[in-house]
Amino acid sequence: MPTYVCWARDGQLSADQKQRIAQGVTLIHSECTGAPPALVQCIFEGIDATSHYIGGQPAPDSVWVYGHIRDGRDLEVREQLLLRIAELLVDVAHIDSSLTWVYLNPLANTNMVEFGQTLPVPGSELQWIEQMPTGLRERLLELNANTKR
Amino acid sequence: MPTYVCWARDGQLSADQKQRIAQGVTLIHSECTGAPPALVQCIFEGIDATSHYIGGQPAPDSVWVYGHIRDGRDLEVREQLLLRIAELLVDVAHIDSSLTWVYLNPLANTNMVEFGQTLPVPGSELQWIEQMPTGLRERLLELNANTKR
Amino acid sequence: MPTYVCWARDGQLSADQKQRIAQGVTLIHSECTGAPPALVQCIFEGIDATSHYIGGQPAPDSVWVYGHIRDGRDLEVREQLLLRIAELLVDVAHIDSSLTWVYLNPLANTNMVEFGQTLPVPGSELQWIEQMPTGLRERLLELNANTKR
Repeated sequence: MPTYVCWARDGQLSADQKQRIAQGVTLIHSECTGAPPALVQCIFEGIDATSHYIGGQPAPDSVWVYGHIRDGRDLEVREQLLLRIAELLVDVAHIDSSLTWVYLNPLANTNMVEFGQTLPVPGSELQWIEQMPTGLRERLLELNANTKR
Repeated sequence: MPTYVCWARDGQLSADQKQRIAQGVTLIHSECTGAPPALVQCIFEGIDATSHYIGGQPAPDSVWVYGHIRDGRDLEVREQLLLRIAELLVDVAHIDSSLTWVYLNPLANTNMVEFGQTLPVPGSELQWIEQMPTGLRERLLELNANTKR
Repeated sequence: MPTYVCWARDGQLSADQKQRIAQGVTLIHSECTGAPPALVQCIFEGIDATSHYIGGQPAPDSVWVYGHIRDGRDLEVREQLLLRIAELLVDVAHIDSSLTWVYLNPLANTNMVEFGQTLPVPGSELQWIEQMPTGLRERLLELNANTKR
């Protein structure tokens, strides 16, 4: 139910690293929140060399992940999301933890449409998937089943 | 008073489709909220083939519209915005409704400057335009008048 | 502690203008909020000619700055941030003030990790930096000291 946008320097992440970050974020989000993995979207944005500054100076090769998630997650859940995603970036992007930035922006479920449908409150995702048209339901259940653990 | 950012695969939307989506979002926002169409900004972002994942797998050609709107809109208004924008994407981008994602992020009017001016509360837009410098006021009134319906 | 994303037409801002905007936003954020300048991130995004609309029509060369800052800033602080950033854009990008857009999205400090660490509440930044590992602490203190005023 969330979308995570991951910003890194152009060329800093290979296609394989992007896929591993997407899979990792998907698994972390699902494990921390209980939401089905099929509902996690990840998008990567490249930043060119003249377009990234920290403290007013050209930034080192850091990575910023910005997740737009449903509102209502407990502090402990959000802290786990933030810290596990930061660790994932260290592991996959081979950067020092001081180069990881992670933000979460909570949105009301009534402010989100995914797969053409307004979202349910946290905890009702599986019923929500069950009520979907057959083809879409099967696609989502298959994505859930295929999630790497 | 809002900015809608529309994310799609590189090359998925033609220039004509982008303009039609921008016009459609502008009209939908104005009809649903009563805000003048001249104040609706739309930006399109391309996503390259290695940079888009749903459920940890490469994503199909879906479209994600993320609107940053003023806070204070009723549930019914926000639901109409979400569902009409999803329908617009089906219509213009020729995708199945299961490939449409729409989020809204409400911001306090005191957190927004447009056309160099802090925004009024919802409902006071026309007085706000009336008090603007002549050239800008005329530009906005002309944009309002030209909105395709 | 914030990230400001600055959207402008491809080629509208030179590398030098981007750096001056980044330095200006960093200084303005630090002066208005009291947060150390070393913690301000700025990212620039280019928009291609077919991808920017205002009022459903192709947009003029405007600039939109969208800051994701910590929650809890007073109205006066946020108003100063918005208006001083708009003035900075007029000054550096040589555009009319009617072509400046600035939004702020406040996030709880518990929703933000920077430099691999969850953020403190506003006002505790210097203690937060003091508790960091030596190399990182020195890097941040140096960035603070080097901020152009």
